[in-house]
Amino acid sequence: MRAAVYQSAGEVVVEDVPDAALREPTDAIVRVVRACICGSDLWAYRGIIDRPPGSRLGHEFIGVVEQVGDDIRTVRAGDFVVAPFQWSDNTCPACRDGIQTRCEHGGTFGAPGTEGGQGEAVRVPEADGTLVVVPVSGSGPHGVDPALYPSLLALSDVAATGLHGAVLSGASEGSTVAVIGDGAVGLCAVLGATKVLGAEQVILMSRHPDRAAIGKEFGATDIVPERGEEGIERVRELTGGLGVRHVVEAVGTPDAWDMAIGMTRAGGRIGAVGVPHTTPQLGIFTPFRQHLTLSFGVAPVRHYLPDLLGRVLADGYDPGRVFDLSLPLERVDEGYSAMSERRSIKTMLEP
Amino acid sequence: MRAAVYQSAGEVVVEDVPDAALREPTDAIVRVVRACICGSDLWAYRGIIDRPPGSRLGHEFIGVVEQVGDDIRTVRAGDFVVAPFQWSDNTCPACRDGIQTRCEHGGTFGAPGTEGGQGEAVRVPEADGTLVVVPVSGSGPHGVDPALYPSLLALSDVAATGLHGAVLSGASEGSTVAVIGDGAVGLCAVLGATKVLGAEQVILMSRHPDRAAIGKEFGATDIVPERGEEGIERVRELTGGLGVRHVVEAVGTPDAWDMAIGMTRAGGRIGAVGVPHTTPQLGIFTPFRQHLTLSFGVAPVRHYLPDLLGRVLADGYDPGRVFDLSLPLERVDEGYSAMSERRSIKTMLEP
Repeated sequence: MRAAVYQSAGEVVVEDVPDAALREPTDAIVRVVRACICGSDLWAYRGIIDRPPGSRLGHEFIGVVEQVGDDIRTVRAGDFVVAPFQWSDNTCPACRDGIQTRCEHGGTFGAPGTEGGQGEAVRVPEADGTLVVVPVSGSGPHGVDPALYPSLLALSDVAATGLHGAVLSGASEGSTVAVIGDGAVGLCAVLGATKVLGAEQVILMSRHPDRAAIGKEFGATDIVPERGEEGIERVRELTGGLGVRHVVEAVGTPDAWDMAIGMTRAGGRIGAVGVPHTTPQLGIFTPFRQHLTLSFGVAPVRHYLPDLLGRVLADGYDPGRVFDLSLPLERVDEGYSAMSERRSIKTMLEP
Repeated sequence: MRAAVYQSAGEVVVEDVPDAALREPTDAIVRVVRACICGSDLWAYRGIIDRPPGSRLGHEFIGVVEQVGDDIRTVRAGDFVVAPFQWSDNTCPACRDGIQTRCEHGGTFGAPGTEGGQGEAVRVPEADGTLVVVPVSGSGPHGVDPALYPSLLALSDVAATGLHGAVLSGASEGSTVAVIGDGAVGLCAVLGATKVLGAEQVILMSRHPDRAAIGKEFGATDIVPERGEEGIERVRELTGGLGVRHVVEAVGTPDAWDMAIGMTRAGGRIGAVGVPHTTPQLGIFTPFRQHLTLSFGVAPVRHYLPDLLGRVLADGYDPGRVFDLSLPLERVDEGYSAMSERRSIKTMLEP
């Protein structure tokens, strides 16, 4: 089968790899219908973090179950499924706490040594606890309307990660929320804050008109293109001089953290879903002085998936709007460069 | 009048200073009945932070109102009062949010340039928003039972700061909580977690038998004398291998933070009330990976004072147990050295 493989910074290729095959009785094999490229895939592509040459790529995919191991009870061949970007048994203490991304039998698709979503098929460990079945609607080659593919695919990571950021920020009905990061996760934080949590005022920090436009569609009430101190000042102006009670940090860089801490109202809360590769350390004296709560976490997508799936199927919840480029798998390299150069917000791949 | 004055690291003296006097119509003058020395006063005494020579000391006191400014409505001469360690107008947005320690007209007693509690009298700015009157009970020279002085004095800082740490940690009815720090604040965190919040299991990290004994009186169910990795391991053993959902960090040093992060269960929450003078930066990758919530803050004592005062007067709430040394003001230097050398948990001063 064909799959995307990392060679070196700036170099991703599609090549022949061994066919996906069952290894454990708790595995399933999923034939990929759509996959995509994540902002976090770019860390290695840009050479910011190391990644072994030859490692498989991608952690977001939807597809059709092809084969299941002997112990599998909740999915079967032919099911159309969404896979969260990490697998989990969904029964261990962490899973029961709703933190499937700390599952004691969990792992991340596309992490070095595992199979990736950017390929024709994937072995899914702990398939019973991991995969969520999309009910057959009758239309489309797999019984699911292809118009829904982008939003279903977004559920595998960014839709839930954005929502998680908003949840961690403590946003709820009527809140004012600021979102730092206008990538797919930041945009999905806007969507989650407004449509799921009921936030009233959502300020999106964005200086890219195409992203800001989607942010507005998703419910952002204010767009702030300024950055740094100017951005903080602008957000304070929009919030009676006091700052925002709920801030989503969806970037992870020191500059983004400075903005987040600077714009949060005393006693406020920052939901941090940006992977802090470039922010190993954070100054805590200002958070201490300002009575801030910093809530961190790799989004437990599996926890949010059933609810979000229902919203996509029934309520027109459309996180798939973040996809603005679609490519065949064989041209995956174009997707990486387009996202790295910010010519694409998020790129979908078709095997 | 006489008051404690900082000279240099290791040198605190009592000398003549100008009498406390009204300056603003919102001021009150309080004649100090009891004051005390705080763990945070030791930062400068030990030379860890700078402090101007000649600056007044102390931020915890109880006393009798001697004189009030023209605008004062809620206290009058003769009232027995507890002063929180910071003054606040109790009406600004931060105060209304319950964060009186970010009051826009606030300040800290004993901060360089202000008057300190370790003296015969104190000018209290924003007295209406700051002072809390203790109802007259009839007994004692000021109408308040002197046996209650230690607990009333503890309300000016440590009782509320400890409780605040427990609140920030998210502890509630039935929780398991770990407390790092067996100073007065840590001990009061134990008391607050058990008696106010209803925590069921409280693990106190303590290797000082005298402090551990008070911790047990205050409701600690487990005492862990080990530190570092051993301490973390021991706490994990006590919590089914998973770590604790609620941790109070009442020290502020890098070692204490390492323990706090190491012992917190995935998805758990750390309430941080230890001033991070020696921990300017904190690694955030582990908090991110472990889904931790870090909640920081200088305790808004004024917010907790009315409730805690009621508990002291009616329910036998006795944070004053943390005082194990009482000295006349003139011997304040002995108190500083006793606390610095850990011969005293907390020292009370009588002018």
